[in-house]
Amino acid sequence: MKYPNGSNKVYNNKISTSNRGMTLESQLNQTNTYYLNNDIAVIYKKPTPITVNEVSYHSKKDVVITKAHYIVPSTTDYNGLYKGSYVDFEAKETRKEYFPLANIHQHQINHLEKIINNGGLSFIIVRFVIINETYLLPTNKLIKFINNNTRKSIPIAYFKQEGFLIKDGYLPNLDYLKIVDILKERKNEKIN
Amino acid sequence: MKYPNGSNKVYNNKISTSNRGMTLESQLNQTNTYYLNNDIAVIYKKPTPITVNEVSYHSKKDVVITKAHYIVPSTTDYNGLYKGSYVDFEAKETRKEYFPLANIHQHQINHLEKIINNGGLSFIIVRFVIINETYLLPTNKLIKFINNNTRKSIPIAYFKQEGFLIKDGYLPNLDYLKIVDILKERKNEKIN
Repeated sequence: MKYPNGSNKVYNNKISTSNRGMTLESQLNQTNTYYLNNDIAVIYKKPTPITVNEVSYHSKKDVVITKAHYIVPSTTDYNGLYKGSYVDFEAKETRKEYFPLANIHQHQINHLEKIINNGGLSFIIVRFVIINETYLLPTNKLIKFINNNTRKSIPIAYFKQEGFLIKDGYLPNLDYLKIVDILKERKNEKIN
Repeated sequence: MKYPNGSNKVYNNKISTSNRGMTLESQLNQTNTYYLNNDIAVIYKKPTPITVNEVSYHSKKDVVITKAHYIVPSTTDYNGLYKGSYVDFEAKETRKEYFPLANIHQHQINHLEKIINNGGLSFIIVRFVIINETYLLPTNKLIKFINNNTRKSIPIAYFKQEGFLIKDGYLPNLDYLKIVDILKERKNEKIN
């Protein structure tokens, strides 16, 4: 579970030409802001879902939440619109040499699959911190691995083979839509 | 500003054949659940954005937010995917005989317009509580009104003329995708 309102703010205020040390979330947020400001795509990180238990009314306009809990999200962190296509993905960092499947909830995988079945584009983005490489893995490849393996983690080699390396850049920071273009082409080839 | 974790829970637990007395949000949530369970569409209400100021760690898995604030949303409440199309909208109830434009933020209108420009479908859904009628108004008609009027509210008559009445039903509760089908057809006619 992530708490996006915490430590990332530090990174958002930091101006750097190197992406090293930036969290995946910070890089994706910067990238999405770039896409938005340049009329390329409208993709946002969803607010973290919480359950509010108690509030305190200071005034009509100043309501303070005094007790709340984080809840396990039923969908993914990011969704939006790119060149007429619905785009949906989950982003995760790992410090291991493999991607533990425990990092993604079963209902999130179900959600990603529903997106494909309803004509959208969905995938996961995984950052392997130790080698500083970020991969996009399409949902069908994620599901293929789960169906054909009893392992509880996906090795980097599978990402290299079936996924796409997202190269670090300056503007945008992490240009994952270049890879979404490939997914769009493949999808159109299948349809036409 | 709305606090969706509050009173609506009462309605979600109530089984009723009449929609009278249900909030618009409850009806939309029931409708979206129906769409989801019947593989018609994948549309969710986004969590309400908050800024977390303080948390208390009871255990690794039990983090309690002890201070947080609601923040003004930069986008809309609902988005998702329907038959390959990206769908995005804001839903509002009013007890007046007109829709006060103060109920919708300028950045939300900008967001709805960006959706249209990037090939998606966007609109507002407005419930007029006093006459128990709910209308869908496409974004282009909303912007047309704002551009051609100095008034700070949209009369019901404009919704009747330029929008679409969403009829109350049993299953689904508020079948707004029927109207989205019309918007999709019009969009395709313009493109082809």
